[in-house]
Amino acid sequence: MEYYSDHIGRLIEQMGRLPGIGPKTAQRLAFHIIGMSEEHVKELASSITEAKANVRYCKICGTLTDQEICPICANPSRNHREIMVVENSRDLAAYEKTQKYDGVYHVLNGAISPMLGIGPDDIRLKELMQRLQDDVDEVIIATNSSLEGETTAMYISKLIRPTGIKVTRIASGVPVGGDLEYIDEVTLLRALEGRTELH
Amino acid sequence: MEYYSDHIGRLIEQMGRLPGIGPKTAQRLAFHIIGMSEEHVKELASSITEAKANVRYCKICGTLTDQEICPICANPSRNHREIMVVENSRDLAAYEKTQKYDGVYHVLNGAISPMLGIGPDDIRLKELMQRLQDDVDEVIIATNSSLEGETTAMYISKLIRPTGIKVTRIASGVPVGGDLEYIDEVTLLRALEGRTELH
Repeated sequence: MEYYSDHIGRLIEQMGRLPGIGPKTAQRLAFHIIGMSEEHVKELASSITEAKANVRYCKICGTLTDQEICPICANPSRNHREIMVVENSRDLAAYEKTQKYDGVYHVLNGAISPMLGIGPDDIRLKELMQRLQDDVDEVIIATNSSLEGETTAMYISKLIRPTGIKVTRIASGVPVGGDLEYIDEVTLLRALEGRTELH
Repeated sequence: MEYYSDHIGRLIEQMGRLPGIGPKTAQRLAFHIIGMSEEHVKELASSITEAKANVRYCKICGTLTDQEICPICANPSRNHREIMVVENSRDLAAYEKTQKYDGVYHVLNGAISPMLGIGPDDIRLKELMQRLQDDVDEVIIATNSSLEGETTAMYISKLIRPTGIKVTRIASGVPVGGDLEYIDEVTLLRALEGRTELH
Protein backbone atom coordinates (compact mmCIF):
# COMPACT_ATOMS: atom_id res chain seq x y z
CA MET A 1 0.00 0.00 0.00
CA GLU A 2 2.34 2.71 -1.28
CA TYR A 3 -0.52 5.21 -1.09
CA TYR A 4 -0.74 4.79 2.69
CA SER A 5 2.04 5.58 5.12
CA ASP A 6 3.49 2.63 7.06
CA HIS A 7 1.86 3.83 10.26
CA ILE A 8 -1.58 4.08 8.71
CA GLY A 9 -1.12 0.70 7.05
CA ARG A 10 -0.15 -0.85 10.37
CA LEU A 11 -3.12 0.70 12.17
CA ILE A 12 -5.52 -0.50 9.45
CA GLU A 13 -4.01 -3.98 9.72
CA GLN A 14 -4.42 -4.03 13.51
CA MET A 15 -8.02 -2.81 13.29
CA GLY A 16 -8.75 -5.46 10.66
CA ARG A 17 -7.61 -8.20 13.04
CA LEU A 18 -10.46 -7.42 15.45
CA PRO A 19 -13.50 -9.69 15.13
CA GLY A 20 -16.22 -8.51 12.75
CA ILE A 21 -14.11 -5.64 11.37
CA GLY A 22 -13.70 -5.93 7.58
CA PRO A 23 -11.09 -4.05 5.49
CA LYS A 24 -13.36 -1.07 4.74
CA THR A 25 -14.36 -0.64 8.39
CA ALA A 26 -10.73 -1.04 9.46
CA GLN A 27 -9.72 1.78 7.10
CA ARG A 28 -12.58 3.98 8.30
CA LEU A 29 -11.67 3.38 11.98
CA ALA A 30 -7.97 4.05 11.32
CA PHE A 31 -8.64 7.39 9.63
CA HIS A 32 -11.09 8.28 12.36
CA ILE A 33 -8.47 7.55 15.05
CA ILE A 34 -5.84 9.67 13.27
CA GLY A 35 -8.37 12.50 13.17
CA MET A 36 -9.21 12.26 16.89
CA SER A 37 -7.70 14.65 19.45
CA GLU A 38 -4.37 13.60 20.92
CA GLU A 39 -5.95 13.32 24.35
CA HIS A 40 -8.71 11.04 23.07
CA VAL A 41 -6.17 8.84 21.28
CA LYS A 42 -4.16 8.50 24.50
CA GLU A 43 -7.33 7.54 26.37
CA LEU A 44 -8.16 4.91 23.77
CA ALA A 45 -4.67 3.37 23.75
CA SER A 46 -4.36 3.39 27.54
CA SER A 47 -7.82 1.87 28.03
CA ILE A 48 -6.59 -1.06 25.93
CA THR A 49 -3.27 -1.60 27.71
CA GLU A 50 -4.72 -0.90 31.17
CA ALA A 51 -7.58 -3.35 30.68
CA LYS A 52 -5.20 -6.05 29.50
CA ALA A 53 -2.77 -5.38 32.37
CA ASN A 54 -5.32 -5.16 35.17
CA VAL A 55 -8.15 -7.50 34.30
CA ARG A 56 -7.90 -11.07 35.57
CA TYR A 57 -10.18 -13.96 36.46
CA CYS A 58 -12.04 -13.91 39.80
CA LYS A 59 -10.48 -16.59 42.05
CA ILE A 60 -13.93 -17.86 42.99
CA CYS A 61 -16.29 -17.60 40.02
CA GLY A 62 -13.85 -17.07 37.14
CA THR A 63 -15.38 -13.90 35.73
CA LEU A 64 -13.18 -11.09 34.42
CA THR A 65 -12.51 -8.54 37.16
CA ASP A 66 -10.01 -5.98 38.52
CA GLN A 67 -9.72 -7.59 41.95
CA GLU A 68 -8.67 -11.00 43.16
CA ILE A 69 -12.33 -11.63 44.03
CA CYS A 70 -15.06 -10.02 41.91
CA PRO A 71 -17.65 -7.61 43.41
CA ILE A 72 -20.41 -10.22 43.12
CA CYS A 73 -18.50 -13.00 44.95
CA ALA A 74 -17.37 -10.44 47.56
CA ASN A 75 -20.91 -9.19 48.18
CA PRO A 76 -22.30 -10.73 51.43
CA SER A 77 -25.88 -9.76 50.56
CA ARG A 78 -25.93 -12.08 47.53
CA ASN A 79 -27.18 -15.65 48.04
CA HIS A 80 -24.01 -17.72 47.94
CA ARG A 81 -25.98 -20.98 48.14
CA GLU A 82 -27.33 -20.47 44.63
CA ILE A 83 -24.82 -20.73 41.80
CA MET A 84 -25.64 -19.90 38.20
CA VAL A 85 -23.30 -21.55 35.71
CA VAL A 86 -22.64 -19.49 32.56
CA GLU A 87 -20.27 -19.89 29.63
CA ASN A 88 -18.55 -16.50 29.86
CA SER A 89 -18.46 -13.10 31.54
CA ARG A 90 -20.71 -11.52 28.90
CA ASP A 91 -23.46 -14.02 29.76
CA LEU A 92 -23.00 -13.13 33.44
CA ALA A 93 -23.38 -9.46 32.50
CA ALA A 94 -26.56 -10.27 30.57
CA TYR A 95 -28.16 -11.83 33.69
CA GLU A 96 -26.88 -9.05 35.97
CA LYS A 97 -28.64 -6.51 33.77
CA THR A 98 -32.00 -8.07 34.70
CA GLN A 99 -31.25 -6.97 38.33
CA LYS A 100 -33.48 -9.82 39.54
CA TYR A 101 -30.97 -12.59 40.19
CA ASP A 102 -29.37 -12.38 43.64
CA GLY A 103 -27.36 -15.59 43.68
CA VAL A 104 -23.74 -15.91 42.58
CA TYR A 105 -22.18 -17.23 39.37
CA HIS A 106 -19.71 -19.72 38.05
CA VAL A 107 -18.12 -18.82 34.73
CA LEU A 108 -16.95 -21.84 32.73
CA ASN A 109 -14.99 -19.76 30.23
CA GLY A 110 -16.12 -22.05 27.46
CA ALA A 111 -18.43 -24.94 26.68
CA ILE A 112 -17.80 -28.59 25.83
CA SER A 113 -17.39 -28.91 22.06
CA PRO A 114 -16.17 -32.17 20.51
CA MET A 115 -16.10 -30.30 17.16
CA LEU A 116 -13.56 -27.77 18.47
CA GLY A 117 -11.79 -30.36 20.64
CA ILE A 118 -12.89 -28.67 23.88
CA GLY A 119 -13.43 -31.32 26.54
CA PRO A 120 -14.68 -31.19 30.17
CA ASP A 121 -11.11 -30.57 31.41
CA ASP A 122 -10.80 -27.43 29.26
CA ILE A 123 -13.58 -25.53 31.02
CA ARG A 124 -13.76 -24.60 34.72
CA LEU A 125 -15.62 -27.71 35.92
CA LYS A 126 -13.12 -28.85 38.55
CA GLU A 127 -13.44 -25.41 40.16
CA LEU A 128 -17.24 -25.75 40.14
CA MET A 129 -17.11 -29.16 41.87
CA GLN A 130 -14.78 -27.71 44.52
CA ARG A 131 -17.26 -24.93 45.24
CA LEU A 132 -20.00 -27.52 45.78
CA GLN A 133 -18.15 -28.76 48.87
CA ASP A 134 -19.46 -25.64 50.64
CA ASP A 135 -23.18 -25.37 51.41
CA VAL A 136 -24.96 -25.01 48.08
CA ASP A 137 -28.74 -25.33 47.64
CA GLU A 138 -29.01 -25.11 43.87
CA VAL A 139 -26.94 -24.99 40.71
CA ILE A 140 -28.72 -23.21 37.85
CA ILE A 141 -27.25 -24.13 34.49
CA ALA A 142 -27.49 -21.13 32.17
CA THR A 143 -25.24 -22.23 29.33
CA ASN A 144 -26.38 -21.21 25.85
CA SER A 145 -29.11 -23.24 24.16
CA SER A 146 -26.67 -24.20 21.41
CA LEU A 147 -25.43 -27.75 20.83
CA GLU A 148 -22.33 -27.02 22.92
CA GLY A 149 -24.34 -25.35 25.68
CA GLU A 150 -26.82 -28.22 25.90
CA THR A 151 -24.02 -30.80 25.88
CA THR A 152 -22.30 -28.93 28.69
CA ALA A 153 -25.56 -28.68 30.66
CA MET A 154 -26.15 -32.44 30.41
CA TYR A 155 -22.57 -33.17 31.41
CA ILE A 156 -22.68 -30.90 34.47
CA SER A 157 -26.04 -32.29 35.52
CA LYS A 158 -24.66 -35.85 35.48
CA LEU A 159 -21.55 -34.73 37.33
CA ILE A 160 -23.48 -33.04 40.15
CA ARG A 161 -26.30 -35.58 40.55
CA PRO A 162 -24.32 -37.89 42.94
CA THR A 163 -23.88 -34.97 45.39
CA GLY A 164 -27.65 -34.66 45.83
CA ILE A 165 -27.54 -30.91 45.15
CA LYS A 166 -30.51 -29.59 43.16
CA VAL A 167 -29.56 -28.89 39.54
CA THR A 168 -31.84 -26.79 37.31
CA ARG A 169 -31.68 -25.59 33.72
CA ILE A 170 -33.02 -22.21 32.60
CA ALA A 171 -36.23 -22.66 30.59
CA SER A 172 -36.34 -22.82 26.82
CA GLY A 173 -37.62 -19.26 26.76
CA VAL A 174 -34.18 -18.72 25.31
CA PRO A 175 -34.59 -19.39 21.57
CA VAL A 176 -32.83 -22.48 20.28
CA GLY A 177 -29.49 -21.62 18.75
CA GLY A 178 -29.55 -18.24 20.50
CA ASP A 179 -26.66 -16.58 22.27
CA LEU A 180 -27.53 -15.35 25.79
CA GLU A 181 -25.91 -11.96 25.45
CA TYR A 182 -28.19 -10.94 22.56
CA ILE A 183 -31.47 -11.80 24.27
CA ASP A 184 -33.76 -9.20 25.83
CA GLU A 185 -34.07 -9.00 29.60
CA VAL A 186 -37.74 -10.08 29.75
CA THR A 187 -36.99 -13.32 27.92
CA LEU A 188 -33.98 -13.91 30.17
CA LEU A 189 -36.17 -13.44 33.25
CA ARG A 190 -38.89 -15.74 31.90
CA ALA A 191 -36.27 -18.38 31.25
CA LEU A 192 -35.02 -18.02 34.83
CA GLU A 193 -38.52 -18.23 36.35
CA GLY A 194 -39.47 -21.27 34.23
CA ARG A 195 -36.34 -23.23 35.10
CA THR A 196 -36.86 -26.95 35.63
CA GLU A 197 -34.94 -29.55 37.61
CA LEU A 198 -32.73 -31.87 35.56
CA HIS A 199 -33.25 -35.62 36.21
CA MET B 1 -21.96 -1.50 35.57
CA GLU B 2 -21.10 -3.22 38.85
CA TYR B 3 -20.86 -6.52 36.99
CA TYR B 4 -17.94 -5.23 34.94
CA SER B 5 -14.62 -4.12 36.33
CA ASP B 6 -13.74 -0.44 35.91
CA HIS B 7 -11.10 -1.29 33.34
CA ILE B 8 -13.45 -3.35 31.23
CA GLY B 9 -16.12 -0.64 31.50
CA ARG B 10 -13.64 2.00 30.37
CA LEU B 11 -12.48 -0.12 27.43
CA ILE B 12 -16.09 -0.78 26.36
CA GLU B 13 -16.80 2.95 26.59
CA GLN B 14 -13.75 3.81 24.46
CA MET B 15 -14.65 1.20 21.84
CA GLY B 16 -18.23 2.52 21.76
CA ARG B 17 -16.97 6.01 20.90
CA LEU B 18 -15.58 4.79 17.57
CA PRO B 19 -17.83 5.41 14.54
CA GLY B 20 -20.28 2.62 13.71
CA ILE B 21 -19.50 0.64 16.86
CA GLY B 22 -22.67 0.04 18.91
CA PRO B 23 -22.77 -1.03 22.58
CA LYS B 24 -22.92 -4.78 21.80
CA THR B 25 -20.03 -4.62 19.36
CA ALA B 26 -18.05 -2.48 21.82
CA GLN B 27 -18.54 -5.15 24.49
CA ARG B 28 -17.58 -7.92 22.08
CA LEU B 29 -14.42 -6.06 21.00
CA ALA B 30 -13.45 -5.28 24.60
CA PHE B 31 -13.69 -8.90 25.70
CA HIS B 32 -11.86 -9.98 22.57
CA ILE B 33 -9.01 -7.56 23.35
CA ILE B 34 -8.73 -8.78 26.94
CA GLY B 35 -8.51 -12.33 25.61
CA MET B 36 -5.74 -11.48 23.11
CA SER B 37 -2.08 -12.26 23.81
CA GLU B 38 -0.13 -9.56 25.65
CA GLU B 39 2.11 -9.08 22.63
CA HIS B 40 -0.86 -8.58 20.31
CA VAL B 41 -2.44 -6.07 22.73
CA LYS B 42 0.82 -4.10 22.81
CA GLU B 43 0.94 -4.10 19.01
CA LEU B 44 -2.63 -2.83 18.84
CA ALA B 45 -2.11 -0.04 21.38
CA SER B 46 1.21 1.07 19.87
CA SER B 47 -0.20 1.07 16.32
CA ILE B 48 -2.77 3.58 17.59
CA THR B 49 -0.37 5.90 19.40
CA GLU B 50 2.35 5.59 16.74
CA ALA B 51 -0.04 6.40 13.92
CA LYS B 52 -1.36 9.45 15.76
CA ALA B 53 2.17 10.60 16.65
CA ASN B 54 3.76 10.09 13.24
CA VAL B 55 1.11 10.71 10.65
CA ARG B 56 0.80 14.24 9.28
CA TYR B 57 -0.38 16.01 6.15
CA CYS B 58 1.86 16.03 3.06
CA LYS B 59 3.20 19.58 2.57
CA ILE B 60 2.31 19.46 -1.10
CA CYS B 61 -0.91 17.51 -1.65
CA GLY B 62 -2.30 17.35 1.91
CA THR B 63 -2.74 13.57 2.15
CA LEU B 64 -1.96 11.74 5.38
CA THR B 65 1.62 10.48 5.37
CA ASP B 66 4.67 9.66 7.52
CA GLN B 67 7.04 12.05 5.73
CA GLU B 68 7.04 15.75 5.09
CA ILE B 69 6.27 14.97 1.45
CA CYS B 70 4.20 11.89 0.59
CA PRO B 71 5.60 9.08 -1.63
CA ILE B 72 3.35 10.11 -4.53
CA CYS B 73 4.42 13.78 -4.54
CA ALA B 74 8.05 12.69 -4.09
CA ASN B 75 7.89 10.27 -7.03
CA PRO B 76 9.54 11.84 -10.12
CA SER B 77 8.01 9.26 -12.48
CA ARG B 78 4.48 10.50 -11.74
CA ASN B 79 3.03 13.20 -14.01
CA HIS B 80 3.19 16.33 -11.86
CA ARG B 81 1.37 18.38 -14.52
CA GLU B 82 -1.86 16.48 -13.87
CA ILE B 83 -3.53 17.08 -10.49
CA MET B 84 -6.54 15.10 -9.28
CA VAL B 85 -8.53 16.91 -6.60
CA VAL B 86 -10.15 14.59 -4.01
CA GLU B 87 -12.00 15.22 -0.77
CA ASN B 88 -9.85 13.05 1.50
CA SER B 89 -7.00 10.53 1.75
CA ARG B 90 -9.37 7.57 1.51
CA ASP B 91 -10.56 8.78 -1.89
CA LEU B 92 -6.94 9.14 -2.97
CA ALA B 93 -6.36 5.55 -1.86
CA ALA B 94 -9.40 4.42 -3.85
CA TYR B 95 -7.94 5.87 -7.09
CA GLU B 96 -4.45 4.57 -6.31
CA LYS B 97 -5.87 1.04 -6.09
CA THR B 98 -6.82 1.23 -9.77
CA GLN B 99 -3.06 1.50 -10.53
CA LYS B 100 -3.94 3.34 -13.75
CA TYR B 101 -3.67 6.98 -12.69
CA ASP B 102 -0.12 8.32 -12.92
CA GLY B 103 -0.70 11.99 -12.09
CA VAL B 104 -0.56 13.52 -8.62
CA TYR B 105 -3.29 14.52 -6.18
CA HIS B 106 -4.58 17.42 -4.18
CA VAL B 107 -6.50 16.46 -1.03
CA LEU B 108 -9.02 19.10 0.05
CA ASN B 109 -9.64 17.48 3.43
CA GLY B 110 -13.31 18.32 3.16
CA ALA B 111 -15.94 19.67 0.78
CA ILE B 112 -17.91 22.88 0.69
CA SER B 113 -21.10 22.39 2.71
CA PRO B 114 -23.35 25.36 3.54
CA MET B 115 -25.39 22.93 5.69
CA LEU B 116 -22.40 22.13 7.91
CA GLY B 117 -21.04 25.66 7.66
CA ILE B 118 -17.96 24.56 5.71
CA GLY B 119 -16.95 27.30 3.28
CA PRO B 120 -14.25 27.57 0.58
CA ASP B 121 -11.76 28.85 3.18
CA ASP B 122 -12.19 25.72 5.29
CA ILE B 123 -10.84 23.33 2.65
CA ARG B 124 -7.40 23.35 1.04
CA LEU B 125 -8.26 25.58 -1.95
CA LYS B 126 -5.64 28.29 -1.38
CA GLU B 127 -2.97 25.57 -1.47
CA LEU B 128 -4.42 24.24 -4.74
CA MET B 129 -4.30 27.70 -6.38
CA GLN B 130 -0.68 28.07 -5.25
CA ARG B 131 0.23 24.78 -6.93
CA LEU B 132 -1.28 26.02 -10.19
CA GLN B 133 1.46 28.66 -10.42
CA ASP B 134 3.78 25.84 -11.49
CA ASP B 135 3.29 24.22 -14.90
CA VAL B 136 0.02 22.30 -14.74
CA ASP B 137 -1.77 20.87 -17.79
CA GLU B 138 -4.96 19.63 -16.20
CA VAL B 139 -6.90 19.63 -12.95
CA ILE B 140 -9.21 16.59 -12.62
CA ILE B 141 -11.94 17.19 -10.06
CA ALA B 142 -12.78 13.89 -8.37
CA THR B 143 -14.87 15.09 -5.45
CA ASN B 144 -17.82 12.83 -4.51
CA SER B 145 -20.97 13.06 -6.59
CA SER B 146 -22.88 14.21 -3.51
CA LEU B 147 -24.41 17.68 -3.17
CA GLU B 148 -21.29 18.88 -1.34
CA GLY B 149 -18.95 17.26 -3.86
CA GLU B 150 -20.77 18.79 -6.84
CA THR B 151 -20.88 22.21 -5.18
CA THR B 152 -17.15 21.99 -4.52
CA ALA B 153 -16.48 20.91 -8.11
CA MET B 154 -18.42 23.87 -9.52
CA TYR B 155 -16.67 26.27 -7.17
CA ILE B 156 -13.18 25.00 -8.07
CA SER B 157 -13.99 25.08 -11.78
CA LYS B 158 -15.01 28.76 -11.57
CA LEU B 159 -11.93 29.55 -9.51
CA ILE B 160 -9.50 27.97 -11.98
CA ARG B 161 -11.13 29.09 -15.26
CA PRO B 162 -9.35 32.53 -15.33
CA THR B 163 -5.95 30.76 -15.28
CA GLY B 164 -6.71 29.01 -18.59
CA ILE B 165 -5.74 25.60 -17.14
CA LYS B 166 -7.90 22.70 -18.35
CA VAL B 167 -10.36 21.59 -15.67
CA THR B 168 -12.16 18.26 -15.97
CA ARG B 169 -14.68 16.40 -13.83
CA ILE B 170 -14.70 12.60 -13.53
CA ALA B 171 -17.66 11.13 -15.44
CA SER B 172 -20.95 10.28 -13.87
CA GLY B 173 -20.01 6.62 -13.91
CA VAL B 174 -19.85 7.23 -10.22
CA PRO B 175 -23.44 6.71 -9.00
CA VAL B 176 -25.18 9.86 -7.80
CA GLY B 177 -25.02 10.14 -4.03
CA GLY B 178 -22.22 7.58 -3.93
CA ASP B 179 -19.07 7.79 -1.85
CA LEU B 180 -15.86 7.25 -3.88
CA GLU B 181 -14.24 4.91 -1.41
CA TYR B 182 -17.03 2.32 -1.73
CA ILE B 183 -17.02 2.11 -5.50
CA ASP B 184 -15.40 -0.73 -7.46
CA GLU B 185 -12.22 -0.08 -9.42
CA VAL B 186 -13.75 -0.67 -12.86
CA THR B 187 -16.39 2.01 -12.27
CA LEU B 188 -13.73 4.38 -10.96
CA LEU B 189 -11.64 3.82 -14.10
CA ARG B 190 -14.63 4.31 -16.41
CA ALA B 191 -15.40 7.56 -14.62
CA LEU B 192 -11.81 8.68 -15.14
CA GLU B 193 -11.75 7.77 -18.84
CA GLY B 194 -15.11 9.47 -19.49
CA ARG B 195 -14.13 12.72 -17.81
CA THR B 196 -15.38 15.88 -19.53
CA GLU B 197 -14.10 19.42 -19.54
CA LEU B 198 -16.00 21.87 -17.38
CA HIS B 199 -17.14 25.08 -19.15
